[in-house]
Amino acid sequence: MPFDLLYYAGLAGIAVFAISGALAAAEKELDILGFILFATVTGIGGGTVRDLILGVEVAWVASPMDLKTCIAAAILTYFAAGQIIRRQRLLVWMDAMGLALFSVLGTAKAYHLGADPLVAIAMGMITPTFGSIIRDILLDRQPVLLQPEIYVSAAISGSVSYLLFIHLFEQPDLSILLAISTAFCVRAAAIIWDLRLPKFKRL
Amino acid sequence: MPFDLLYYAGLAGIAVFAISGALAAAEKELDILGFILFATVTGIGGGTVRDLILGVEVAWVASPMDLKTCIAAAILTYFAAGQIIRRQRLLVWMDAMGLALFSVLGTAKAYHLGADPLVAIAMGMITPTFGSIIRDILLDRQPVLLQPEIYVSAAISGSVSYLLFIHLFEQPDLSILLAISTAFCVRAAAIIWDLRLPKFKRL
Amino acid sequence: MPFDLLYYAGLAGIAVFAISGALAAAEKELDILGFILFATVTGIGGGTVRDLILGVEVAWVASPMDLKTCIAAAILTYFAAGQIIRRQRLLVWMDAMGLALFSVLGTAKAYHLGADPLVAIAMGMITPTFGSIIRDILLDRQPVLLQPEIYVSAAISGSVSYLLFIHLFEQPDLSILLAISTAFCVRAAAIIWDLRLPKFKRL
Repeated sequence: MPFDLLYYAGLAGIAVFAISGALAAAEKELDILGFILFATVTGIGGGTVRDLILGVEVAWVASPMDLKTCIAAAILTYFAAGQIIRRQRLLVWMDAMGLALFSVLGTAKAYHLGADPLVAIAMGMITPTFGSIIRDILLDRQPVLLQPEIYVSAAISGSVSYLLFIHLFEQPDLSILLAISTAFCVRAAAIIWDLRLPKFKRL
Repeated sequence: MPFDLLYYAGLAGIAVFAISGALAAAEKELDILGFILFATVTGIGGGTVRDLILGVEVAWVASPMDLKTCIAAAILTYFAAGQIIRRQRLLVWMDAMGLALFSVLGTAKAYHLGADPLVAIAMGMITPTFGSIIRDILLDRQPVLLQPEIYVSAAISGSVSYLLFIHLFEQPDLSILLAISTAFCVRAAAIIWDLRLPKFKRL
Repeated sequence: MPFDLLYYAGLAGIAVFAISGALAAAEKELDILGFILFATVTGIGGGTVRDLILGVEVAWVASPMDLKTCIAAAILTYFAAGQIIRRQRLLVWMDAMGLALFSVLGTAKAYHLGADPLVAIAMGMITPTFGSIIRDILLDRQPVLLQPEIYVSAAISGSVSYLLFIHLFEQPDLSILLAISTAFCVRAAAIIWDLRLPKFKRL
């Protein structure tokens, strides 16, 4: 997988999450600026937390294309929110793709910086979730961490399988592709069959 | 504008936001330590997030005068909260001055570190707002991002006009002064005439 | 006090806070992954914020034993939550020990990096409290900053006494030991006699 494909995959992930942030702004009937703010926080929040913790330059400070993608996604959503909301099913699948992309790309970034595997897995959980978590805290909504669906687990499946594949095949591009597919399939199975981990029961 | 004036302007901005944080503590009837904590979080929170994202030393770690200003503002508010609250109108104008100062100083800091203009504008939005946002999250209040008034837009007007003026005149001090005036006037107009951006309407 | 003792004291502090995070997950009846997530956020959140603000490598990125401690504490709590909850009294005292440890270790870390005393005290407040604060924000619970008990004040007593002892005795190990005892005694007194600072009264 050439570098360019990875780069555009990252932007696509940002766009997907930015749209979900802008839709939250639509729900609250905010103005166009509110759309842009929530699209941006949701689109780049997870990567920002990842980069701060890893101690590397924050991605969107280095590359303003990330911000431009969020702004474009916000404006698009402002003018087409009705049509997007009617395609709710499509959104769920786009979000599953964003989750798979960000979990594997976050893990790969940490791994190539020499982080411990456990730290790399943590980054694979933080990158796709912290943008939405910040959005939900700002909106006083229940963050995904409290929801029973297989979401964070799908992110972990992407992280763990990336580390496994890179160890087995020593080919970064192939490993990224296979790991993204794994995470997407886990999330897809969870969506289709509404899978959940068993809940803790108070005795 | 000499360096000292900028330095004291920055401290004045911290003091204004710290007082608004301490007043939130007064509303919750916290103890003196609660006043200091909320004054500090509100006064330096925005600058902290800005410096972390820019990857530079956090301002209040380098200069303890920032913390001292917050503590002094908290103690002052503890003993004079009643009188401050009666001057609500004055507070709104002090807050408008803090907003104008922090938006332009945040943009200028990012610009002089070589950041992309879009990133510099983002810093002009983060610096005056994230202190209040953290305060409101801690207090479970509706953060300013969700409010319909022209507040973040006024911060943007300060950021954009700073970048415009520095491009046109190439004089940092004059540009800072003009941009602060611009942001203050935009916010003042919004206060006086209760201006708002049009809200998104669900169809 | 040899280095190893300090290292294990730090891990013990992480374990105590991680258990309190996992118990919050038990209260919400989350799955095993939810236990791990809340244990981790609570156990290492405060140290993460401290290290980010000080501009040093985040502790758990450098040492994966921190993450392993949180995961082990979460699994232990998942299978023994009932018994832990029945020992509520023990938990309060373990939390007091975690508070004393983290406040002094956080202050000592900042002090040895050359930070201003006021900044070192701020780190002694951030390290033991921000993990719980992030947990409570995620769970939409009232964070400790809003509670009237002597908690943050006990952290300050540990910070201030550490700076005093290191100035008087110039012996880091002895100072850490004495300061931890001080903070623990202040918190213990607050627990036993239910001490509070006077609340601000609106006139």
